Amino acid sequence: MSNEALLVATAIAHWKLIISRIEISITRLSDEQLLQQIAPGKNRVVYLVGHLAAVHDRLFPLLGIGERLHPELDEPYLNQPDRTVPDLLTPAELREVFKKVNAALAEAFDKLTPDEWLQPHTAVSADDFAKDPLRNRLAVLLSRASHAAFHTGQAILVK
Amino acid sequence: MSNEALLVATAIAHWKLIISRIEISITRLSDEQLLQQIAPGKNRVVYLVGHLAAVHDRLFPLLGIGERLHPELDEPYLNQPDRTVPDLLTPAELREVFKKVNAALAEAFDKLTPDEWLQPHTAVSADDFAKDPLRNRLAVLLSRASHAAFHTGQAILVK
Repeated sequence: MSNEALLVATAIAHWKLIISRIEISITRLSDEQLLQQIAPGKNRVVYLVGHLAAVHDRLFPLLGIGERLHPELDEPYLNQPDRTVPDLLTPAELREVFKKVNAALAEAFDKLTPDEWLQPHTAVSADDFAKDPLRNRLAVLLSRASHAAFHTGQAILVK
Repeated sequence: MSNEALLVATAIAHWKLIISRIEISITRLSDEQLLQQIAPGKNRVVYLVGHLAAVHDRLFPLLGIGERLHPELDEPYLNQPDRTVPDLLTPAELREVFKKVNAALAEAFDKLTPDEWLQPHTAVSADDFAKDPLRNRLAVLLSRASHAAFHTGQAILVK
């Protein structure tokens, strides 16, 4: 494998590891635990899972790798704060939707070449990308992996 | 810049972004807030900062890029749970040590070539690395970036 292919494979393996960790965490938590707040006055785990599912689903258009599977997640889990609108999905449904989105993403990621990972994501202009070629698809992948880890650190507090 | 150099530069920029976020967070928190627990019965922020400082300091030998700056951090912030031993450092000292370790790491990271990022880290055997060439330095960098993000998600809960 070429160096560039190995570097990309390492990054994708990292993404999959981070995703597997949070998927395992939310599988182990009971429905009741998923409905708990991570700390007094803070988000419930179900909200964090819905939030991550929405953010990950938005990677399809952001990376230009396909159509969204669940645009209906944005309103309750991105636009509105937790506990201000009725729950769109049950804990069981959220686990399933989250895994489905992540599985479809992993399949799409495996198809991209190193050249394609270095292309701009769709939210950066040609001018801005010319000034900063690090605003590429790989940067988005790494950013979303750390974002998932950020919320995993919160979700495990309800254990 | 070559593709491999761009891929590595993207990963290092990601690391620096994650580190800057937690450094900003702990700069904004007062000493009193740093001494608070992130949730009832959980770690204090000072412990998380000491823990991250120790884990990051261990990257010098793990990546084979230099000597440790603060091996004394391991006992209170890695080996012992929070609030079981007297605090080794004050909040102000912890902020400084953490930034110093991260700055020295960033300097060392900038010197590694793509080939060197793809070499095994020092905790993997030659046999194991032959079976899985993704157990390289870059994998460790990405893992520690997500680890820092994981604890940042917890530290911000005391706001």
